[in-house]
Amino acid sequence: MSNPLKLGLAGLGTVGVSVVKRLAQLENELATASGRAMRVTAVTARSRDKDRGVDLSACEWFDDPVSLATSEDVDVYVELMGGDSGAAEESVRAALAAGKHVVTANKALLAKHGNELAKLAEDNGVMLNFEAAVAGGIPIIKTMREGMTSNDISRVYGIMNGTCNYILTRMELEGLSFDECLKDAQRLGYAEADPTFDVEGNDTAHKLALLTSLAFGTEIEADSIFLEGITSLTTDDIRAADELGFRIKLLGVALRTDTGIEQRVHPTMVPKSSAIAQISGVTNAVAVDGDAVGSITMSGPGAGGDATASAVVADLVDVARDFKVYPLGRPVGELKPYVRAKMRAHEGGYYIRLSVNDRPGAFASIAHRMAEQDISLESIVQRRTNGHFTKTDDGGSAKASEKPQAVVLITYETTEKAIRMALKQIEEDGHIAATPQMIRIERL
Amino acid sequence: MSNPLKLGLAGLGTVGVSVVKRLAQLENELATASGRAMRVTAVTARSRDKDRGVDLSACEWFDDPVSLATSEDVDVYVELMGGDSGAAEESVRAALAAGKHVVTANKALLAKHGNELAKLAEDNGVMLNFEAAVAGGIPIIKTMREGMTSNDISRVYGIMNGTCNYILTRMELEGLSFDECLKDAQRLGYAEADPTFDVEGNDTAHKLALLTSLAFGTEIEADSIFLEGITSLTTDDIRAADELGFRIKLLGVALRTDTGIEQRVHPTMVPKSSAIAQISGVTNAVAVDGDAVGSITMSGPGAGGDATASAVVADLVDVARDFKVYPLGRPVGELKPYVRAKMRAHEGGYYIRLSVNDRPGAFASIAHRMAEQDISLESIVQRRTNGHFTKTDDGGSAKASEKPQAVVLITYETTEKAIRMALKQIEEDGHIAATPQMIRIERL
Repeated sequence: MSNPLKLGLAGLGTVGVSVVKRLAQLENELATASGRAMRVTAVTARSRDKDRGVDLSACEWFDDPVSLATSEDVDVYVELMGGDSGAAEESVRAALAAGKHVVTANKALLAKHGNELAKLAEDNGVMLNFEAAVAGGIPIIKTMREGMTSNDISRVYGIMNGTCNYILTRMELEGLSFDECLKDAQRLGYAEADPTFDVEGNDTAHKLALLTSLAFGTEIEADSIFLEGITSLTTDDIRAADELGFRIKLLGVALRTDTGIEQRVHPTMVPKSSAIAQISGVTNAVAVDGDAVGSITMSGPGAGGDATASAVVADLVDVARDFKVYPLGRPVGELKPYVRAKMRAHEGGYYIRLSVNDRPGAFASIAHRMAEQDISLESIVQRRTNGHFTKTDDGGSAKASEKPQAVVLITYETTEKAIRMALKQIEEDGHIAATPQMIRIERL
Repeated sequence: MSNPLKLGLAGLGTVGVSVVKRLAQLENELATASGRAMRVTAVTARSRDKDRGVDLSACEWFDDPVSLATSEDVDVYVELMGGDSGAAEESVRAALAAGKHVVTANKALLAKHGNELAKLAEDNGVMLNFEAAVAGGIPIIKTMREGMTSNDISRVYGIMNGTCNYILTRMELEGLSFDECLKDAQRLGYAEADPTFDVEGNDTAHKLALLTSLAFGTEIEADSIFLEGITSLTTDDIRAADELGFRIKLLGVALRTDTGIEQRVHPTMVPKSSAIAQISGVTNAVAVDGDAVGSITMSGPGAGGDATASAVVADLVDVARDFKVYPLGRPVGELKPYVRAKMRAHEGGYYIRLSVNDRPGAFASIAHRMAEQDISLESIVQRRTNGHFTKTDDGGSAKASEKPQAVVLITYETTEKAIRMALKQIEEDGHIAATPQMIRIERL
């Protein structure tokens, strides 16, 4: 058996501590499986004195991540600090340049600098593993980078943010508002004090950017991802979706089209019968459509110290096993440039909820605007409301009133351009009392 | 780039032909990803002259698989013939002994001889990859052998036979009998002319045996798997399950218990809300419960030429990438002996359907027999029947008749021993008109 693999660990939060614990607990099993023992030789974290419930007395303490990352006593640098620049970026660059393997859970860093970092790893003949960066404990990176190598992939999509899925599940099951559910999520530790990054879709976008590169062999390009969060969703939308046979999920979707690759993160209507619709609470799921394999779906916990640590340790075992694979599945020089498909060219069905002023001619005008854009309607649900979308259906017999009525339209496949134009004109026509709600439907 | 990896392929059925096609189609991509080109240099199959729609003119033809497997012009032997002995076994042994890597889809061979073959691979420093042997295109072997290395696994279970799941899904959706659905499955090519191997659970058992070894680090032990097929299931059972909030699936389950490992294949009641209950038609799914990661579920096509070929080619890319991993996740010498937990000690809830002669005292007697075995009942559904279990509920007010009544019991957790004893006594008491139906409920 070779010399033990020496690990330098930066970041001792819940994930870091769980990694230390698992490595100690499974020491023999992992050495047997990989043929090489592993040992944490060096650590760094914000506070040196905090009691973390793990014995770090045998590890050298570093105050500076870069010094740790380049220490002679470190073979693999495990970066669990987070952040897309600063210490995380500097130390990962330093480690790779110094010929150290890197294992990281840092999606933000990779979404921003992944192409360069992968190149740096390649040039220095070292591994850069990041299973924990996407969907926590689900081995989706391995599945895409290795298990589906022989597939021409047409789409990858998933629920990759537990906070959002928790909120949407609660809204659906209990009829609570977004704000109420967010507060509960914060209380339970599922959402940050500042939840923007999660609920506006940025976190999902970082993960999607990595999956897109693996799926299509393209350079990582996170900046051009179309982004729409879940904050505008109301219980009316959730209920209307339910009645129409859908659920609403925050999906990240990367899709190959004739004009390039669509990358988008937005609330999405998915058929209740689909595998992805079944994913509730903080669970994550990723589905990949390949030409050979059809559709593969993986689900499991997307966050949590132990689940994420499980992915980090698996990455370490791959290093111990000397599984040399290009970080992005192929050499960076062979990655295709990312060609963005314009969002306006996106094709799909749409859910539209309008708050219509109940005046003669309003519906005719709306229908006319849709028709002008060649948009066909699959269903129209009109309900008398008192501010609320209710299950009571007064049908068309109710007489016109001053109060706006909720009208839900489901369109057949059309383009984003057509929908936006139709909605713009409908707003200008003055028949609606509030900004229209529009949710994309994903074909599954 | 190194010399091309030379592949010798035995078996040119749908999977073999799809492998040849994909390798040709993705030649450059695969070479880029793995750093090594691959080329089929030798083939063998039953008939040399058959037109298979692929160009094999550049390959050497062998009449004998053993000669092909040991040919100097072969680095990797790809065995796609099937069969747990004979040519498949001999050629795989010969290849490994000759220092060739082996990629195979042959679950029967591995279930029977996997321990020895893994040892042979290890002794000769070569790889033995078998992703395609379990759940077709789903990379579950890679997930368990690599992605979940750092988990202490407590259970693995899944739907691993598309034929059975197709039949059960049709029975459920259309209320058809087992025989009708089987005939349709045969007509559509989802079931063999002799379906025994699928519908009696043997095929699932072979796959389960491999997953058990990977999950628990134990020697493969297929012979001691408890086996019960789906042929005795009736539409009554399917309907009763539905009304009680369950679906019936043929599951393979491996579970660690205090007394050893349970390996069992049987029709199983699963809650409708569970991920596994959503798997319909020929789709497969495998779930793994690990201490770090919680539960991971993977679903996708479990069979079909292209899906299976996808797994074979991924295995080949792993060989090209030189991903040396012990075939069973650790050295054969380090595998623990398989200790079988007795099926009689199995603990769980049970669904019992009895055809009760409607005589005074019959129900009291049945309830008494259950109580004697300390079995508590979670629910009792009694229905007037005319041979059929119907949705009409006549309640207890109907007067006693000669016709037997269907009674469905759901028990709280008990043991297999207690249930069998209770059912034996109930049968002996003479109050029932047919052999009781008993279906195990899986906690999910």
